[in-house]
Amino acid sequence: MDGSARGPRERMVYSAAQLVRERGVAATGVRDVVERASAPRGSFQHYFPGGKDQLVSEALLWSGDYAAAWAARYLRETRRPTPSGLFAHLAAQWKEEFDRRGFQRGCPVMATAGEVAGSGSAITEPLRMALSRWEEAIVAALTAMGVPARRGRRQATLMLSTLEGAILMARVYGSVRPLTTVVKDLGPLLDAEFGTDG
Amino acid sequence: MDGSARGPRERMVYSAAQLVRERGVAATGVRDVVERASAPRGSFQHYFPGGKDQLVSEALLWSGDYAAAWAARYLRETRRPTPSGLFAHLAAQWKEEFDRRGFQRGCPVMATAGEVAGSGSAITEPLRMALSRWEEAIVAALTAMGVPARRGRRQATLMLSTLEGAILMARVYGSVRPLTTVVKDLGPLLDAEFGTDG
Repeated sequence: MDGSARGPRERMVYSAAQLVRERGVAATGVRDVVERASAPRGSFQHYFPGGKDQLVSEALLWSGDYAAAWAARYLRETRRPTPSGLFAHLAAQWKEEFDRRGFQRGCPVMATAGEVAGSGSAITEPLRMALSRWEEAIVAALTAMGVPARRGRRQATLMLSTLEGAILMARVYGSVRPLTTVVKDLGPLLDAEFGTDG
Repeated sequence: MDGSARGPRERMVYSAAQLVRERGVAATGVRDVVERASAPRGSFQHYFPGGKDQLVSEALLWSGDYAAAWAARYLRETRRPTPSGLFAHLAAQWKEEFDRRGFQRGCPVMATAGEVAGSGSAITEPLRMALSRWEEAIVAALTAMGVPARRGRRQATLMLSTLEGAILMARVYGSVRPLTTVVKDLGPLLDAEFGTDG
């Protein structure tokens, strides 16, 4: 998740994603993003003629693709994949983040949703796309395991809901316990369906 | 949830909670709150010498108590309470909100967490307290049904996580489908534990 090796445009998108994860959209200033990305002053307007909305939109889509890639990675790296294993894999990234860096950064989709989900903001559509790409990657992984498409879709909704909420609770309480609890307790449900008629 | 009949102080707390639910903390201006609450200009400083942090803190605690009371109400109104019934009751409030008013307003705890959960903000402690009061009310309801305390605590974490995430997904997609999916699919897990050795 380090964007330092990329060009200024990519670094600004990456930095915007990280700032949104920390403090939400409203409190993320373009100036802070440019500074954090070590981008040349004045380059922002060049790369993002659509302004902050464009920057945040790209940051959301970048985040959705990153999360989707993480979900897809599970299948490549796992010999005997299971729905509960996939869920644990999704949660593991967050446990590692919180263990390593504390609870400062959350999910950019959640932060943005809290601020604009029901509004007419231009970023509601990229927000929807980011969440959808993440969800589709989970559905695809489940389908590849042999879970029927319709059930996979329901399971993806359940996994994403539970994971997002556990991230929220972990950050508020300053503890990874909600994550470990939901991984352990939801696992049997996910695999029971998998085993019996998945 | 109508605060119009109360005094100016209560109306400002209520209005702050609603604005945070719509747009988050950063974009909620004290001036907007005073106006929405139809409170006398200049009364804000009198009632909230601690400024916006105090107002938002009280709005969060009001929200946590409101959610806790809603959870407690389930037991009073239900002849044969079950864990899945409680979860459906929690979700029903949100389905009704979205059906009736659209997806403009979300959970104030989520909005605030997205912006300040990992920061040193003065509102992180009331945020934690608000979530904790809600969770404790759920634990208490489960315990009253006969669920052992430790299991009740885990179930409350699972319920709250899943509900919060489903609210997030519902708002982003503009559909109550995530809520109906998690209520239906998580129910058997909650009651299986209840039935077998709860």
